[in-house]
Amino acid sequence: MPSIAELGARAKAASRVLATASTAEKDAALLAAADLLIERVDDVLAANAEDVEREQAAGASATVLDRLRLTPARVEGMAGGLRQVAALPDPVGEVGAGWTRPNGLRISTVRVPLGVVAIIYENRPNVTSDAFGLCLKSGNAAFLRGSSGAIRSNVAIAGVLREALAKSGLPEDALVLVEDTSREAAVEFMRQREHVDCLIPRGGPSLIRSILDNATVPYVIDGDGNCHVYVDAAADLDMAAEIVANAKTQRPSVCNAAETLLVHRAVADRFLPQVAPRLEGVELVGDEATRGVLGEDRVAPATEHDWAQEFLALKLAIRVVDGLDEAIDHIARYGTGHSEAIVTTDLRAADRFTTEVDAAAVLVNASTRFVDGEQFGFGAEIGISTQKLHARGPMGLRQLTTEKYVVRGEGQIRT
Amino acid sequence: MPSIAELGARAKAASRVLATASTAEKDAALLAAADLLIERVDDVLAANAEDVEREQAAGASATVLDRLRLTPARVEGMAGGLRQVAALPDPVGEVGAGWTRPNGLRISTVRVPLGVVAIIYENRPNVTSDAFGLCLKSGNAAFLRGSSGAIRSNVAIAGVLREALAKSGLPEDALVLVEDTSREAAVEFMRQREHVDCLIPRGGPSLIRSILDNATVPYVIDGDGNCHVYVDAAADLDMAAEIVANAKTQRPSVCNAAETLLVHRAVADRFLPQVAPRLEGVELVGDEATRGVLGEDRVAPATEHDWAQEFLALKLAIRVVDGLDEAIDHIARYGTGHSEAIVTTDLRAADRFTTEVDAAAVLVNASTRFVDGEQFGFGAEIGISTQKLHARGPMGLRQLTTEKYVVRGEGQIRT
Repeated sequence: MPSIAELGARAKAASRVLATASTAEKDAALLAAADLLIERVDDVLAANAEDVEREQAAGASATVLDRLRLTPARVEGMAGGLRQVAALPDPVGEVGAGWTRPNGLRISTVRVPLGVVAIIYENRPNVTSDAFGLCLKSGNAAFLRGSSGAIRSNVAIAGVLREALAKSGLPEDALVLVEDTSREAAVEFMRQREHVDCLIPRGGPSLIRSILDNATVPYVIDGDGNCHVYVDAAADLDMAAEIVANAKTQRPSVCNAAETLLVHRAVADRFLPQVAPRLEGVELVGDEATRGVLGEDRVAPATEHDWAQEFLALKLAIRVVDGLDEAIDHIARYGTGHSEAIVTTDLRAADRFTTEVDAAAVLVNASTRFVDGEQFGFGAEIGISTQKLHARGPMGLRQLTTEKYVVRGEGQIRT
Repeated sequence: MPSIAELGARAKAASRVLATASTAEKDAALLAAADLLIERVDDVLAANAEDVEREQAAGASATVLDRLRLTPARVEGMAGGLRQVAALPDPVGEVGAGWTRPNGLRISTVRVPLGVVAIIYENRPNVTSDAFGLCLKSGNAAFLRGSSGAIRSNVAIAGVLREALAKSGLPEDALVLVEDTSREAAVEFMRQREHVDCLIPRGGPSLIRSILDNATVPYVIDGDGNCHVYVDAAADLDMAAEIVANAKTQRPSVCNAAETLLVHRAVADRFLPQVAPRLEGVELVGDEATRGVLGEDRVAPATEHDWAQEFLALKLAIRVVDGLDEAIDHIARYGTGHSEAIVTTDLRAADRFTTEVDAAAVLVNASTRFVDGEQFGFGAEIGISTQKLHARGPMGLRQLTTEKYVVRGEGQIRT
């Protein structure tokens, strides 16, 4: 088996070719890959069946098996994703800014691929195809390391995609899959500083922890979303109830779902009884004031841990606050810098909230659920960054690129 | 002594105030700090004299002592730097883009401070003042950790700057200096993930290595500059000689100085004898072809290590290449992604070089020495990033900020 470093070197070599590939070449390869996935759907499903059988025998949960299992429709979805990315605008080559210095030097910034984008992910074999598509369109080689549970599926999918690359005249090492699924290989993967330009983990807290502890390559963390909705004294309470219910219940398992509701004391007596029926089936925990309004049977006491927790489930923490300051302080203390919303008709409250709350996205009178690449109009996303460096919030194609300065002169020297 | 975490928490608390400070408030504090540095110059020089004396007794080299030593003129320079930063435009609040989604959501990006910028640096006490100025102007708290050799100077300078902050009505914890100069404290400093938004190291390879091994906070590396000048077959050879001499000798100790000269075989016989007299005092190493032209006495054989090395000295490696492809391959193999220059009158060669060479800055017919924040017109710089994430190339005020998405709606929910 080739070493991780050898695999990284192959991806790096391919990235040099991809950096100068035209949009037409990249799009053609994406469409060819989509077609070949459909053509080879039986092979992919057969490989996937082996994974599912093995994991089932090993006692994997129904949730894990559902994420792992591919169907003709899911493979169709993967192909559709590649076609969709082919249709998106190519960020590579965009000129960002240009200026001329007093000495006549003409400086401009040009958007270029990162080079090799490494992605480490858990389960879901569709990530193999999705990540490849976004990387290729943005001119990057995809260096992928999936989990052991999906290894047969990943090998099959990567094989199809690499064949499509070769057919399209692009280097097949534009996708390099690490087949060694050991822990040691994962750590090795995170330390390929010579070959990896950016690492993006797609997984849970233990994967993130491992990155923080072991990675020496630059990375972008797609972290927790402990998101809040603050209902201000001046809120339209009907609108607020709609937004809270949507942010909590429309898809509770995702990072942009709301986890805590903050309600201004002046409207708590009216708003809480209004929103509670919209939250049927949602476990509520809250402070004393909330329990006083909604009843101690309906609302259990919230612990310190509840405020800090990303439930990712039908559970909501509720706190009554004295005003905007207390709401902002609460978010500063417990928020994870993902998505934070205010519902208000008061312009000054809206402006203060959007200015003072430190998060990737701050929303006024809208559900936190809108914070993702597709809803923002990026067409597709590789994750939602909760860090402040490089990319913040939804990461689309543009966030998989960087800039280069191009300086043109006529012989200028520095004196 | 307060713990590193306590100090980080103080900086974090101050950063919340700074994030909403107006440009006028920040500029007033910068000017007040400049004035107070001049007023307290004797205290600063007295503290610095203690450092110099101790380090001299400990056997520090003349170079180290020169970097450490402050003079009235150098303190004047620090104050001047703060005034200069006050005069620069404030990037905070800039709206980058704005668009409206089909559902009516209005999305915009607004430039905001990073929060707490941590800087770990060696010697040079002026960094305490310079880093503080850039951080404050960009709305960030500066969390600083200097070296043991400059500790008295750093404490004195930080004390003056904090006093100026307090006088100006801004939190004095906008500058927090870590006074514990132990290795353990440095590692602790690199792991304050809760309190540090970005770490920027200013130092040599061992500091960089320690960051890679220990840091869990996001960082931007100011790495090596193994810069090349490629003299093409179609170069104006007079211009090329000027540029090579300038790139190598104008200030050899800095990262944007050239370390290797690549010469097209077609002009090597003419160009090398033309440039050699401009490189008097420069130690030359080269390949066989170069030695054949310039003589084996003048040019020692270049080792593999020479091609990969950032000399930071009056030493230049020279290689004769068969053409543009070989030059680009050489740079891909040995370059560090800093600054790479071509000298040519051939448009196609210039375009291929700027497109295919992967570096923070690619230059056509200009000296590599121009790649810094001041020469690019950024007014000041905190370093030159050789990574591709977040900031690439010279880092000015803008690179000390990030963006936030502001989403405004009228009650939109996701269906």
